[in-house]
Amino acid sequence: MSPQQRRSGLGTNQEAVRRHNLGTLLRHVHGAGQISRAELTSLMGLNRSTIAALVGELETLGISERATPVGGVRQGAGRPSAGVAIAAEGPFVIAVDLGVDRAVVARIGLGGRILQRAQAPVHSDGEAWQVGASVAALIRRVVADAPAAAPLVGIGISVPGLVRRSDGLIRLAPNLEWHDVSFGGIVLAALGLDVPVQLANDADLGALAEHIRGAGVGVDDLIYVSGNVGVGAGVIAGGHRLEGAGGYAGEIGHLRFNPEGRPCHCGNRGCWETEVGAHAIAEAIHCPADKVAQLDEVLDGFAQPSRELRETGTALGHGLASIVNTFNPRTVVLGGYFRSLYRLVGAEISAGLADRALPAPLESVTLAMPGLGSDSPLLGAAEIALEPLFVDPVAALGSALVDVRGRLAG
Amino acid sequence: MSPQQRRSGLGTNQEAVRRHNLGTLLRHVHGAGQISRAELTSLMGLNRSTIAALVGELETLGISERATPVGGVRQGAGRPSAGVAIAAEGPFVIAVDLGVDRAVVARIGLGGRILQRAQAPVHSDGEAWQVGASVAALIRRVVADAPAAAPLVGIGISVPGLVRRSDGLIRLAPNLEWHDVSFGGIVLAALGLDVPVQLANDADLGALAEHIRGAGVGVDDLIYVSGNVGVGAGVIAGGHRLEGAGGYAGEIGHLRFNPEGRPCHCGNRGCWETEVGAHAIAEAIHCPADKVAQLDEVLDGFAQPSRELRETGTALGHGLASIVNTFNPRTVVLGGYFRSLYRLVGAEISAGLADRALPAPLESVTLAMPGLGSDSPLLGAAEIALEPLFVDPVAALGSALVDVRGRLAG
Repeated sequence: MSPQQRRSGLGTNQEAVRRHNLGTLLRHVHGAGQISRAELTSLMGLNRSTIAALVGELETLGISERATPVGGVRQGAGRPSAGVAIAAEGPFVIAVDLGVDRAVVARIGLGGRILQRAQAPVHSDGEAWQVGASVAALIRRVVADAPAAAPLVGIGISVPGLVRRSDGLIRLAPNLEWHDVSFGGIVLAALGLDVPVQLANDADLGALAEHIRGAGVGVDDLIYVSGNVGVGAGVIAGGHRLEGAGGYAGEIGHLRFNPEGRPCHCGNRGCWETEVGAHAIAEAIHCPADKVAQLDEVLDGFAQPSRELRETGTALGHGLASIVNTFNPRTVVLGGYFRSLYRLVGAEISAGLADRALPAPLESVTLAMPGLGSDSPLLGAAEIALEPLFVDPVAALGSALVDVRGRLAG
Repeated sequence: MSPQQRRSGLGTNQEAVRRHNLGTLLRHVHGAGQISRAELTSLMGLNRSTIAALVGELETLGISERATPVGGVRQGAGRPSAGVAIAAEGPFVIAVDLGVDRAVVARIGLGGRILQRAQAPVHSDGEAWQVGASVAALIRRVVADAPAAAPLVGIGISVPGLVRRSDGLIRLAPNLEWHDVSFGGIVLAALGLDVPVQLANDADLGALAEHIRGAGVGVDDLIYVSGNVGVGAGVIAGGHRLEGAGGYAGEIGHLRFNPEGRPCHCGNRGCWETEVGAHAIAEAIHCPADKVAQLDEVLDGFAQPSRELRETGTALGHGLASIVNTFNPRTVVLGGYFRSLYRLVGAEISAGLADRALPAPLESVTLAMPGLGSDSPLLGAAEIALEPLFVDPVAALGSALVDVRGRLAG
């Protein structure tokens, strides 16, 4: 925002700048978990009295609280700089990781702290309203111990499918067999609440969370490749989320891979997903169909890779080469069951990649495991629900709900 | 930049903000070619007197001049708003489009105006210093009529290959058989000049130019797919250039397409380029090898597509489907010889895309021809050379050269 006086009046402009700065300061607190005022002064390029005023406002809003400085964080020879910590009874969000076989729901506070979590099976042939009712029941469980004064900012939902950015409509969740499902509305109706709800693709949210507090902190060109029955990617490019025109970017499971290959559920033949997707791997290792959604656990039971798994590793590496040639990422994070696959056939994956990628993009890329384990999409869902707090904390708290436990019990 | 007073002092901060605003205003003038003060006031959210002061400074710097308002651009009932136009003897850049068979060089002013152009053949087995000498000779020709007072801001070079972003090193230009060539330095040495020089990949620059003043104006998710002997893409995602960690993003010619296919120069087999690259098409239509680099002209001579060309069109569509699934673009611009191919087999290209892309990203994508014809990479090269003027016009003019014609003649 430019500092000149707008024709709309200096007062309004100053207020907008102040709220923007308040949100930016909160984003730093959220990223660090706890931070000193001296660090905030340095990060934001504002003077000490401005920082002190903003911190005071966050305390008044109940978002942050004073922390005793740890160790020797000092400003020159002066007093130790006071710390800013996340308030124990501060705002929180509900994050939902909707999987093909189970839903994980968590109450999550600023700093990405998982305060309470619950999960339940999902039947892949279930209707959306049935799944919505299960998710609503899990939400009731995770708010059971929430402090009455803590405000619920919103709900974020990670979806194994294509989500329209403009309104969160699930256009396609192939392994749930959902088409054009307004799942956010279904969950709110089941709860009888009206709070902001955000939905996004699971791999996109995995990339976001890994970028903010996982394996990709400080990495501006990052790809999170998710093996979650289907195969997809979330892409951070130049520090920005790659979303595409409608929010559908990253459907790399449907890159052409083997035109003579197996039929894909998308109607084509030989998509990459038909070689490295969970169904293909399950078939290769004779895993029963009802265990496909727990492929990571099945793979973790292997002591040695079979020939078929080594071939799958090579195919994963070959496909990653196409992705490295296309995006030139610094880091490729292998999420979902690809984590377990990497433990078994990491050498084949790396060799397949090295064999097929162009030398220039290959030389600077690293394969990495998720820093957040299997929670990346869940924590990413929390991030999109928290986002309004970082744009304008005052407005976001204004539309937040207090005493959610009481309201849901009533 | 935040409006608060920095610890470094209000004066310095104000000067930085003023230069930033001056550059932003110039970017608007550059984009529009000619623009009224009223439009600038509205676009920049600054008041009339601030805009008037900035416009006055651009005039003093010799960058812009007063224009008589065209038609009835009026502010309310008052006087017609004075216009801002690009100065006839204002700053310019040299843009170089290095092709596999020829180099095109132009003197280009603000507003993307091509003021003078020249071209010469390039021998694909030529050494880099020979090509550099040819390019230097072309540069001497295009500055022959440059006004002595007009400053040269810099040189931008479009390269058919992988360019390292950090220093402009050409890592690989496969069809020139160049590896790790510092072509910018070679051209400057041949000229005996020291001016800023920027290099980037031709498809990346095509995307940039089409986004600024071609088929992609106002389109934030755009892919320029370039058929230029090799096949590559430039990607604009969410309004930002997709560059990747090293600057190598967009090498979609090396997407795996047909694992049983022809060997590719990259060492793999069946890359997309082996099916839709110029050599593959030339072979299919029995075009002599020495005409491959002019494939667009050869294709323009066809009245009817052969069966082979129709198959190529289908393969182009199938590959575009992978790209649409990966990036979810709003517009795909077909550059280079793909323009000529589209005229012949547009139906097959569109059908191949529709047959293989996922419905959600397919529904909002449009195939388009370049708005700038075959000049997109050339105009993109001008953009990267002009860029310092939009960051800080005062500093950019400070490092510009005047009387380039005289210096090169001396």
